[in-house]
Amino acid sequence: MINQQELFTQMAMQAWETNLKRMNDTFASLTDEQMMADIVPGRNRPLYLLGHMAAVHDRMLPLLGLGERKMEHLDNAFLINPDKAVVELPSIAELRAHYAEANESINRQMGLLRGDEWFEKHTSVSEEDFAKEPHRNKLSILNSRAHHVSYHLGQLMMAKNK
Amino acid sequence: MINQQELFTQMAMQAWETNLKRMNDTFASLTDEQMMADIVPGRNRPLYLLGHMAAVHDRMLPLLGLGERKMEHLDNAFLINPDKAVVELPSIAELRAHYAEANESINRQMGLLRGDEWFEKHTSVSEEDFAKEPHRNKLSILNSRAHHVSYHLGQLMMAKNK
Repeated sequence: MINQQELFTQMAMQAWETNLKRMNDTFASLTDEQMMADIVPGRNRPLYLLGHMAAVHDRMLPLLGLGERKMEHLDNAFLINPDKAVVELPSIAELRAHYAEANESINRQMGLLRGDEWFEKHTSVSEEDFAKEPHRNKLSILNSRAHHVSYHLGQLMMAKNK
Repeated sequence: MINQQELFTQMAMQAWETNLKRMNDTFASLTDEQMMADIVPGRNRPLYLLGHMAAVHDRMLPLLGLGERKMEHLDNAFLINPDKAVVELPSIAELRAHYAEANESINRQMGLLRGDEWFEKHTSVSEEDFAKEPHRNKLSILNSRAHHVSYHLGQLMMAKNK
């Protein structure tokens, strides 16, 4: 019999893992040519989404109190600015490696969190606000980042061969 | 001080409500012309996604043990078949009404569930399997349908004016 915290954490982790796995498979299935083409004219390319996901997942480390960021160099091109605003981008191969490393790193660190630690506050909420809003815990970061994966996965699926 | 079950339920309900609100606003912002146009050539139209969401949310009623379905007539065009396989479709106005009604209905019924009822099994899992896999509870249906909203919301955002 597992306790409720463990059950709830397991449910959240499962949603994250399932969606991330689908995203990994989808990125892996796209050719370099597909990675460079607008999904919809004037909108993001899969290449941009790849760098964007790496930067967002890298940012989860400090948000969850699990360590320093490693990929701040991606922020300008993939977080602060929209696609095509920045001309000098890493190669697709480099971005694939960053994406894999960011995921590997956050997954490894999250694996070290104990059940009750998921219900502690995340680092961008104050003690005062957290006392009033206990749902702003670390697990809420995992949930919202899992939703962020689903959102962009929907877009990425439209870049695949029909 | 709220109990843990209430906290989990609140977190899941908030993700559902936030993403559904964004989806409602996005559908509301699309013109009839945008509703009828492929988001990506050969892929779903927003019109299809509108009927699809109505059918999926209508199906949540029996899955959560909250009542009979009301919109089985949408299944053939929007669940069983892909877009454009079925020629006779309801009008956009009718589909907008179905979508609003399906959401209103499931939200009203879910509001009647007590905290602990969310952790009971949903109706498509057996007692036997549920004993082994307690995460297959009603809250997992809410979570996965919220992810389904995020996934299609990502696609729908690409149908908006740039």
